[in-house]
Amino acid sequence: MDRGKKTDVTQQPLGVAVVGAGYWGPNLVRNFQASDRFRLRHLCDLDVERARRVLGGYSTVQATADYPAVLADPEVDAVAVATPAGTHLDIALAALRAGKHVLVEKPLAATYADGMRLVTEAEERGLTLMCDHTYCYTPAVGRIREAVRSGELGEIHFVDSVRINLGLVQKDIDVLWDLAPHDLSILDFILPDTVEPVAVAAHGADPIGAGHACVAYLTLRLNTGAIAHVHVNWLSPTKVRTTMVGGAKRTLLWDDLNPLQRVAVYDRGVDLASPHEIGVDERRDMLVSYRSGDMVAPALGEKEALRSMVEEFADAVRERRAPLTDGRAGLRVLDILEAASRSLQFQGAVVGLRAGH
Amino acid sequence: MDRGKKTDVTQQPLGVAVVGAGYWGPNLVRNFQASDRFRLRHLCDLDVERARRVLGGYSTVQATADYPAVLADPEVDAVAVATPAGTHLDIALAALRAGKHVLVEKPLAATYADGMRLVTEAEERGLTLMCDHTYCYTPAVGRIREAVRSGELGEIHFVDSVRINLGLVQKDIDVLWDLAPHDLSILDFILPDTVEPVAVAAHGADPIGAGHACVAYLTLRLNTGAIAHVHVNWLSPTKVRTTMVGGAKRTLLWDDLNPLQRVAVYDRGVDLASPHEIGVDERRDMLVSYRSGDMVAPALGEKEALRSMVEEFADAVRERRAPLTDGRAGLRVLDILEAASRSLQFQGAVVGLRAGH
Amino acid sequence: MDRGKKTDVTQQPLGVAVVGAGYWGPNLVRNFQASDRFRLRHLCDLDVERARRVLGGYSTVQATADYPAVLADPEVDAVAVATPAGTHLDIALAALRAGKHVLVEKPLAATYADGMRLVTEAEERGLTLMCDHTYCYTPAVGRIREAVRSGELGEIHFVDSVRINLGLVQKDIDVLWDLAPHDLSILDFILPDTVEPVAVAAHGADPIGAGHACVAYLTLRLNTGAIAHVHVNWLSPTKVRTTMVGGAKRTLLWDDLNPLQRVAVYDRGVDLASPHEIGVDERRDMLVSYRSGDMVAPALGEKEALRSMVEEFADAVRERRAPLTDGRAGLRVLDILEAASRSLQFQGAVVGLRAGH
Amino acid sequence: MDRGKKTDVTQQPLGVAVVGAGYWGPNLVRNFQASDRFRLRHLCDLDVERARRVLGGYSTVQATADYPAVLADPEVDAVAVATPAGTHLDIALAALRAGKHVLVEKPLAATYADGMRLVTEAEERGLTLMCDHTYCYTPAVGRIREAVRSGELGEIHFVDSVRINLGLVQKDIDVLWDLAPHDLSILDFILPDTVEPVAVAAHGADPIGAGHACVAYLTLRLNTGAIAHVHVNWLSPTKVRTTMVGGAKRTLLWDDLNPLQRVAVYDRGVDLASPHEIGVDERRDMLVSYRSGDMVAPALGEKEALRSMVEEFADAVRERRAPLTDGRAGLRVLDILEAASRSLQFQGAVVGLRAGH
Repeated sequence: MDRGKKTDVTQQPLGVAVVGAGYWGPNLVRNFQASDRFRLRHLCDLDVERARRVLGGYSTVQATADYPAVLADPEVDAVAVATPAGTHLDIALAALRAGKHVLVEKPLAATYADGMRLVTEAEERGLTLMCDHTYCYTPAVGRIREAVRSGELGEIHFVDSVRINLGLVQKDIDVLWDLAPHDLSILDFILPDTVEPVAVAAHGADPIGAGHACVAYLTLRLNTGAIAHVHVNWLSPTKVRTTMVGGAKRTLLWDDLNPLQRVAVYDRGVDLASPHEIGVDERRDMLVSYRSGDMVAPALGEKEALRSMVEEFADAVRERRAPLTDGRAGLRVLDILEAASRSLQFQGAVVGLRAGH
Repeated sequence: MDRGKKTDVTQQPLGVAVVGAGYWGPNLVRNFQASDRFRLRHLCDLDVERARRVLGGYSTVQATADYPAVLADPEVDAVAVATPAGTHLDIALAALRAGKHVLVEKPLAATYADGMRLVTEAEERGLTLMCDHTYCYTPAVGRIREAVRSGELGEIHFVDSVRINLGLVQKDIDVLWDLAPHDLSILDFILPDTVEPVAVAAHGADPIGAGHACVAYLTLRLNTGAIAHVHVNWLSPTKVRTTMVGGAKRTLLWDDLNPLQRVAVYDRGVDLASPHEIGVDERRDMLVSYRSGDMVAPALGEKEALRSMVEEFADAVRERRAPLTDGRAGLRVLDILEAASRSLQFQGAVVGLRAGH
Repeated sequence: MDRGKKTDVTQQPLGVAVVGAGYWGPNLVRNFQASDRFRLRHLCDLDVERARRVLGGYSTVQATADYPAVLADPEVDAVAVATPAGTHLDIALAALRAGKHVLVEKPLAATYADGMRLVTEAEERGLTLMCDHTYCYTPAVGRIREAVRSGELGEIHFVDSVRINLGLVQKDIDVLWDLAPHDLSILDFILPDTVEPVAVAAHGADPIGAGHACVAYLTLRLNTGAIAHVHVNWLSPTKVRTTMVGGAKRTLLWDDLNPLQRVAVYDRGVDLASPHEIGVDERRDMLVSYRSGDMVAPALGEKEALRSMVEEFADAVRERRAPLTDGRAGLRVLDILEAASRSLQFQGAVVGLRAGH
Repeated sequence: MDRGKKTDVTQQPLGVAVVGAGYWGPNLVRNFQASDRFRLRHLCDLDVERARRVLGGYSTVQATADYPAVLADPEVDAVAVATPAGTHLDIALAALRAGKHVLVEKPLAATYADGMRLVTEAEERGLTLMCDHTYCYTPAVGRIREAVRSGELGEIHFVDSVRINLGLVQKDIDVLWDLAPHDLSILDFILPDTVEPVAVAAHGADPIGAGHACVAYLTLRLNTGAIAHVHVNWLSPTKVRTTMVGGAKRTLLWDDLNPLQRVAVYDRGVDLASPHEIGVDERRDMLVSYRSGDMVAPALGEKEALRSMVEEFADAVRERRAPLTDGRAGLRVLDILEAASRSLQFQGAVVGLRAGH
């Protein structure tokens, strides 16, 4: 009986394998091990020595380079993919075809078309496909989503995101594909369902001759007339990670590098009086008033984002529902990234986005 | 004899009149009074009561609404114009035609064409025309100019400027014309003579219905391939005023709101190895190395920028030379502002700049 | 008729003279000139040239070295004393004896005994004696006083004040007498009437051989068992000006160098469960709980403290009432300073304070 | 052959057991596992379930409650003690008597006398006794030690340390014993060999009725006349961790919560002219000059302190030398803590320290 089976699943941890022992894989390994909803069975990497080093000398988890064997293991219910984006399609597709639920590191795939194949495959098989948009699971972003979607901030006027640092200059991807997925997945996560980007323009520079942009600015037009802007930069010697969300009622500032005050909600701003409140003759004067209110920095929990993310993965699998950051969220991010690349190619031309993912 | 006359001039303070008792005029009044190179004779405003209030109840300076009388006063050697930009042409032109040296608040004029008329008039008459680009006279910007032009930073890779605040929403001009002149005049001031912007793209939004952009992003392409970017915003509840100047050797960060550490020079960055240093087969690996060096925050003087600015005006008049921020500097800023407005109008289209001002 | 006279006084500005054209005098000159409640008549200094320089070349105010003539001027209703502390007694006493109201720069006098003579003289003559405890008139300190005295913070548990900077090493007074009057006058101002310091201990060091302490730490015991602590330091290359007021309900942090967020009220802290809530056997466990609440940074006005201070002086004179920072407030500060000096002399011994000023 | 044996030891990892699976033990477990100089064999805790939870479900390390069995294991060369201070004596003494090298969490023991027994026992047996003064192994403190001991800062004038936070109110120990060991061990570590504290005064308050001080101020007199001061506080809703080291030539500021600029060296300060440079008559004027120089924030490594600490433990054992933070360093800290407790008991009385540990 299905229901009995489902109950079983709920009570037993999900068997999981991590593929990729590079930069991100070890974080997944650590968090799957720390969660009682999972039983980590394999860490798979083409370089099995690297997998062994990640597991360390005291682990009972199996290191392996044999991915088909991992997929053949009936105790593996799910696969987490933390390999370079160019390999996501093959690895994730194989897992889905073996009947495994799949968690994929951002970006979902190397292209929108590839991402769409994964989404379709998962939907056809009734399997969970989740994109590891880690930031969406931080207490800060959860609070921002709530502030935006509850109306606490009022209608969104602008979003300004800065993510700059002396970053690892990547060989295969430019700074937009490396860093902007964070900002774009957060934007996708916090906006109300009725608000969405419709067009993109991007400007970049490659002053060090890396072969692609190391500094980039991305402007998004939303369907409401609001503007969103992202500044990503690998060459900044100081680290800045801020996002400002300006609303009609309040404005929120997230400073991820200020652990003592990550989120601040300002009850200050500019109001425009409604035209009907004033006579025709007064129209020529500026109908503006300024609020100078308090700032509130809400208390936020301390829970590690990756812990919440893997728990959401487990819950989505067990409850047979779409996870908060599902494959379609990953697709929407890919759509913007591809449009941004086209804009970069055409010197900042405005590029429209696909509708209705 | 001219020379004798000049000596005289050097020994006696310059007679000066300030026109405009609004937002900026009082600052000029205070600084002309504090400098022994000037003798302030008139404060002129259409609203003479406002001029009186600015002078206060203890002043011997004359408040007046009679501009022709001011121009007719032979003891007035120079006129400082601090009125709305739309009136600069008429007021400054009248002063030049009366043989007075002229200092004009930024922007130089309402249009490039107006500005050009002022520059031409002053040049034909051999009079000093100076633009009050105040920030250029701060110790911080002086230090930045030195760092850029001496080669201390190496070739300039990017400039990123943020000037956001809960600002006064203007009736007549958008946020670009209100705030970006600061950033553009600074950029013009610090760049080496051989480096200049060649094209501009601007994106803006008017989420409060003010009738023009309240949030704007400006991207400039320099003739070297470098990129400069300016973010100006009237709707931000927090104040940010930073400029980062990224160079091949070092990167400089100016934070104007951090009095304890306004300028920081980072000896950290990303280097690209020269192609000839490596073999063909290794090309595919990233030829990048990272420097992780010290940061130096240089000691800066405390001199008030406006004080230095009025002294430069006096010196330029006496030495019959172009001031550091002359009319042509003001013209170059107007050229960018007009191009930015056109770009805004065409949804971010790239607009080329005039050459050889 | 008294009442008629009072009405007259209310309508006309008070004639005032400033004595002392050194460091602080010019600030008083500026603020008396800017207030329509005063008419500044004289700036008096033994060095009349210095007084002239302070007034500048455009002023109608009279510079003078002739203090008796100032006191003889019937249009002078009040005298503001901004001379070194050692001269306060003579200058202020002469003014009081000439029937003038008196405002004195902090500290009130060089000794408690001198201060008491001034207080007594003023009280006997029914004249206003006010101490210029400027910080008490900042919007921040006003808000702190309100938070403490309204019970918003709960019972006060501790006060911690840091005022360090590369300061002017004084010839005649140590760092405690130079800087601590600020912190002590603020403490005096914000505490509820029933709470007061009862004893003092001070530790200092003179590492540069200045002849008196350049670094000092002051501990005050309050009658409630709470503790207050002040760190003053002339040798710190960075500037810190913070005061933390810890209460049973909330804790307030004032950072005077953070204009974007001067005051923050934290609704977080440690609570101790009441003993009667728990059984005897559980006593050995810690009865502590932690609150992790929001932080609120209240909107504060921007009014200049000195402006509010001179207005309070005018109001107190006109309303024939004690000003907020009257002579007795100055006396209480002197009492602590003298006790602190005695403690320094005896290597940190605890010294009791006088009761009932 | 001894030498052969030693070579063997160098090549093989040291067998180690951790005792205590509470707050700190898991950090030691993680770092011993990550270092190839150690082989972690046991995690011992009276509550064996707690030890199992710390190890997690994937570990090959043995959890045990049987300490005698751990000591009997010949493969255990060293024991790391991370239990409450009151148990350090018994646990560490048993380990030393079993011939094991010992690492002890701070403070070394509950009393100076207990600590001395451990030091004596270890010295008599030729075993390594090390105190886990973790902060001393941070790159920042290493840099401070270098700056102080190399003379870069000049003679030390003052040290000011602040360590405040909403901390866990402890049941058995006051805030001084909980937090000040960090500051005192750092002070002990950075001072030149010829400079040492000679006396202590402490002030504290227990405003929440915890049974011992929750806020405390500690003043130390050094043999050079310099002063050191430590502020520790469990009740502060904001976290501050700064140490300023003021020297005759330069002043260093360590802000442990500013990852972008942990250490800053200021070349600014106050100088006193030598008396012989000036004539007798000029003595009365202040012989002070001010330097206004640059600030340098040195690049620091990123190595985890605990990793460096366990490596120093391994090196000290293998090289048969005293570790950087040996038992005697722990003793010196205990001496100050006991003196501080006596001072607290006597209301801030100055208490002398033992000489020549």
